[in-house]
Amino acid sequence: MAIRGLLRVGEVCVRVFDIDEARRHYGERMGLIETYQGDPDKLYYKVADEHDWYSLVLKKADAPGVEYFAFRTYEDAEIDHFAAALTDYGLAVEHVEAGVYPKSGRRIRFTLPSGHVMHIYADKEKIGNGMPTRNPGTIPDEGYIRGFRCVRLDHVLLGGPDIVKNRDIFTGIFGFTVSEELVTQEDETRLAVFLSCSNKPHDIAFILQPEGSRFHHVSFLLDSVNDLFHAGDLIGKYEIPVDVSVNRHGVTRGATIYFFDPSGNRNEVFTGGYVHYPDTPTLTWDTSQLGKATFSQDNMPRDSFLNVLT
Amino acid sequence: MAIRGLLRVGEVCVRVFDIDEARRHYGERMGLIETYQGDPDKLYYKVADEHDWYSLVLKKADAPGVEYFAFRTYEDAEIDHFAAALTDYGLAVEHVEAGVYPKSGRRIRFTLPSGHVMHIYADKEKIGNGMPTRNPGTIPDEGYIRGFRCVRLDHVLLGGPDIVKNRDIFTGIFGFTVSEELVTQEDETRLAVFLSCSNKPHDIAFILQPEGSRFHHVSFLLDSVNDLFHAGDLIGKYEIPVDVSVNRHGVTRGATIYFFDPSGNRNEVFTGGYVHYPDTPTLTWDTSQLGKATFSQDNMPRDSFLNVLT
Amino acid sequence: MAIRGLLRVGEVCVRVFDIDEARRHYGERMGLIETYQGDPDKLYYKVADEHDWYSLVLKKADAPGVEYFAFRTYEDAEIDHFAAALTDYGLAVEHVEAGVYPKSGRRIRFTLPSGHVMHIYADKEKIGNGMPTRNPGTIPDEGYIRGFRCVRLDHVLLGGPDIVKNRDIFTGIFGFTVSEELVTQEDETRLAVFLSCSNKPHDIAFILQPEGSRFHHVSFLLDSVNDLFHAGDLIGKYEIPVDVSVNRHGVTRGATIYFFDPSGNRNEVFTGGYVHYPDTPTLTWDTSQLGKATFSQDNMPRDSFLNVLT
Amino acid sequence: MAIRGLLRVGEVCVRVFDIDEARRHYGERMGLIETYQGDPDKLYYKVADEHDWYSLVLKKADAPGVEYFAFRTYEDAEIDHFAAALTDYGLAVEHVEAGVYPKSGRRIRFTLPSGHVMHIYADKEKIGNGMPTRNPGTIPDEGYIRGFRCVRLDHVLLGGPDIVKNRDIFTGIFGFTVSEELVTQEDETRLAVFLSCSNKPHDIAFILQPEGSRFHHVSFLLDSVNDLFHAGDLIGKYEIPVDVSVNRHGVTRGATIYFFDPSGNRNEVFTGGYVHYPDTPTLTWDTSQLGKATFSQDNMPRDSFLNVLT
Repeated sequence: MAIRGLLRVGEVCVRVFDIDEARRHYGERMGLIETYQGDPDKLYYKVADEHDWYSLVLKKADAPGVEYFAFRTYEDAEIDHFAAALTDYGLAVEHVEAGVYPKSGRRIRFTLPSGHVMHIYADKEKIGNGMPTRNPGTIPDEGYIRGFRCVRLDHVLLGGPDIVKNRDIFTGIFGFTVSEELVTQEDETRLAVFLSCSNKPHDIAFILQPEGSRFHHVSFLLDSVNDLFHAGDLIGKYEIPVDVSVNRHGVTRGATIYFFDPSGNRNEVFTGGYVHYPDTPTLTWDTSQLGKATFSQDNMPRDSFLNVLT
Repeated sequence: MAIRGLLRVGEVCVRVFDIDEARRHYGERMGLIETYQGDPDKLYYKVADEHDWYSLVLKKADAPGVEYFAFRTYEDAEIDHFAAALTDYGLAVEHVEAGVYPKSGRRIRFTLPSGHVMHIYADKEKIGNGMPTRNPGTIPDEGYIRGFRCVRLDHVLLGGPDIVKNRDIFTGIFGFTVSEELVTQEDETRLAVFLSCSNKPHDIAFILQPEGSRFHHVSFLLDSVNDLFHAGDLIGKYEIPVDVSVNRHGVTRGATIYFFDPSGNRNEVFTGGYVHYPDTPTLTWDTSQLGKATFSQDNMPRDSFLNVLT
Repeated sequence: MAIRGLLRVGEVCVRVFDIDEARRHYGERMGLIETYQGDPDKLYYKVADEHDWYSLVLKKADAPGVEYFAFRTYEDAEIDHFAAALTDYGLAVEHVEAGVYPKSGRRIRFTLPSGHVMHIYADKEKIGNGMPTRNPGTIPDEGYIRGFRCVRLDHVLLGGPDIVKNRDIFTGIFGFTVSEELVTQEDETRLAVFLSCSNKPHDIAFILQPEGSRFHHVSFLLDSVNDLFHAGDLIGKYEIPVDVSVNRHGVTRGATIYFFDPSGNRNEVFTGGYVHYPDTPTLTWDTSQLGKATFSQDNMPRDSFLNVLT
Repeated sequence: MAIRGLLRVGEVCVRVFDIDEARRHYGERMGLIETYQGDPDKLYYKVADEHDWYSLVLKKADAPGVEYFAFRTYEDAEIDHFAAALTDYGLAVEHVEAGVYPKSGRRIRFTLPSGHVMHIYADKEKIGNGMPTRNPGTIPDEGYIRGFRCVRLDHVLLGGPDIVKNRDIFTGIFGFTVSEELVTQEDETRLAVFLSCSNKPHDIAFILQPEGSRFHHVSFLLDSVNDLFHAGDLIGKYEIPVDVSVNRHGVTRGATIYFFDPSGNRNEVFTGGYVHYPDTPTLTWDTSQLGKATFSQDNMPRDSFLNVLT
């Protein structure tokens, strides 16, 4: 037992207008590590302390947004277990052979009620985190961690309708816990649900939006508020468009910066947040405290944060 | 699925010579929160960001050391599942009724091959973390987090013989992963095994010792290296005996201070360390790098650290 | 030689509507230390790591703003030297006897071209920083540093006309250096001048305003960005009105939060910034980079920051 | 006035056995910036946030130690003033023409009672800190700050006899303040004196040693304890010999790591410490608290720290 089933968001595929601009943003500036070249219309990145070949895929497209996201599951047999459960639930589940996605084993592919395409896979080849597994030491060679000093791809926030159905799939089928939720003060309508399958306060979250398959942000973990400040300094230096500068979320207690890639997709760098367990009480925020729920150091809701998605 | 079975070290019972001295150390100085008084020979503490009534129990005794440790499991039915598996393995499993341990549901109790008494329970009443669950905010009232600014009880390190058998129980029955291990350079004898059931690089670890049921340390999580420095300043101010001052472990990459309570039990405060998953490669250190494995900022093994246990 | 003449802003007197509200803000919440009670219409505070009896005076009044600020000078004889030089310059200099201001030696008092009342004094009794001067240790008793964990009163920013005249007095008579300045892109009109007599990037600054004797903010030094975040968490918790949440200044490179006291006076907590020397080149920002000059992590100028003064 | 006379240790010349090894240590690993090549037996480094061409000179020699150190003074005329005062005191003062030291104006050169050769100069050409002086921004291009992320050369600690005479020269002639001192408990013999001409708790310090002209360490400023930890990680990675790993000094309250260059010269990286003024009370430590005075987080004096000099 311990951690079983879905482990983490192991892969996110984001649509970008221009590959060169995307490389400059995610590679040169943010410092993500380009690990694979197989298709001139795609970029594959890993983040410094990840072991898998890649976690972020950028795909040239005519519109920004999220193409799909993929959860890594603990073992291969679970893929069939989930396929059956999802089919029972009523979703159409497609099987994809190993190798269709580079370095990756077989997958299932399906569309959530919110309109998002989700994958589940159990295997992706490992490239390591820049340190050996025998007597690894504690820090890779200089230059391996650079730019914004991102540690890992951490989570995604997605927008769409029917987020309560999404929630039910993640809790009922995948065993996630609702760590936090945002509801209307008037009638407790769920505006956002935050779901954890780990010790992180969220692995994925959904925000209510009229249109399906919307992308709010992909988030990268940093080691400290010092590194958050350092990232903020570089964001300012490069004049990267900022949505919300350094602040702390009420939800998750993470310290955060939101900014946009050249295609208008929102990125987050964050650090901190509490240690979550399945028996941690669910925290509920209502719209009377919308400012505090989103940005707790000035309690000020930002329209752009709530309404700009790609 | 997600996190199931054993969740965390939810309770550690440490033996102390003197209750008043222990209260001064753990309560007044470290700032743990005394939550329950039921027995003049015991002290019950929670750490600031924990929700359960208590995680640390101090028991008056003639000798220091660890009386028992207890893992919280996800749900009640798992207790019986584990009881059966442990019995099959050949351990004597004792059932303890709800209420024998304050605020706690029923438990099983058994002795590991290393000589340590371990409990498993699924329920303990919750007292909260100083913040409501509706619109909680991000920081409790001033004074709730104080002293060393500990966030949670994080893990224990225990010494005894047969640690490979312990490892097999934790991996085979409880589903833990070996995150790291320390072996002799000569013949790969396991000197220490680090076991994770979570995203933490270890939830429990065992170090090879000829005598059974030995206690190496209990560890408390801090939020940042700044808070680690603050704790170090207070440790110095109070002239608390220090085993190893601020450093970083090779194993787990945690930043650490080791010090002793008035009875000679080792405590740790730490912060950092990497995010662990069941598919993270196991890291192996051998004794050619003993210094780096233990204290990576000066690569200097400390005799006391390896040999002083209670 | 070394540091001579004016050493620091040793005292600021700020006008507040209500003494009880002010005490709640500056004392209970921010954690400044009330050290003297002599007049029911005034509050006297020191900051934790200062040795003098007080540095902040709050005075009940019908309007917010700054009543006066006072520089501590190195030695008594310099008072007369400055009095003569200021008189030569054409300012009316008033002599105030020792004891008129509590715990303070004699002063001179004069009005700058910008309309601000400035004092110079050489003596104020010392109350210490919570630690002895023989074998002091490194950290005072718990509770001495609390609230926002402010370390020192650091600087003031004042608004008024004729700030170039102010600059000339501070450089020509007091020997300050212009560390940075903000000018219009069109014709290099000085909009703000930042003046240092120390290793700090500014000890005092003036911002061009049509009306005289305006108060922009008083700033308190923190130890780290972690403490800045902690202060930000408390500011959010207490719902203190925030002008600009966590960011980094272009000017001075200080990490900052701006907020308002209950009377509408702007306060700052900050940390960092570079080490300044008299031979450090003067940095000039022009209005083409107004956003970056003020808030460099999102390059966004804030109207309120530039125009709201008391 | 403000800061006048001696401003800072602007240059230290350290003797090393091997230029290539020194370059690997100070340049490649520590990340100091090599700015000048003029002599195959010397290396010239600046630290990232300094504006002068160089502050550290390494000179090939048969023995390690300090060749000389040089203070930058505010203006040229002060050189003659100090030359006269030092001559009056009884020291032989040698005049050195501009250009003898690269990029440097004229100097005076003399030997302190402790046996150390000291220079005073008023001019050195500036190369800048990687950022323009018009609209500079807050962070140089990536790669400019690297390795240990040192910000500035901060101070030197030197050993020799007659340190009270040195103290009298620095206080009496140069106007420094004794910020702290270490005395024997028995008879108040001065074992170490810490002298400040700035807002730093020390610009130079002398430790009593029977032999003259001894070198204890040269110290480099870091921005935060996070950066100190990062430097510690690299020190461990490169297996640089460590004298004392991360700790906090009692004297100056600086957080520190001591390590050795390949020639056995001690280096320090540090951060923090209080803001000092000429009216800050002198702090006195006696040998009853030798551990706390030197390393306050474990109160443990280190023999090597007190006795190993080059």
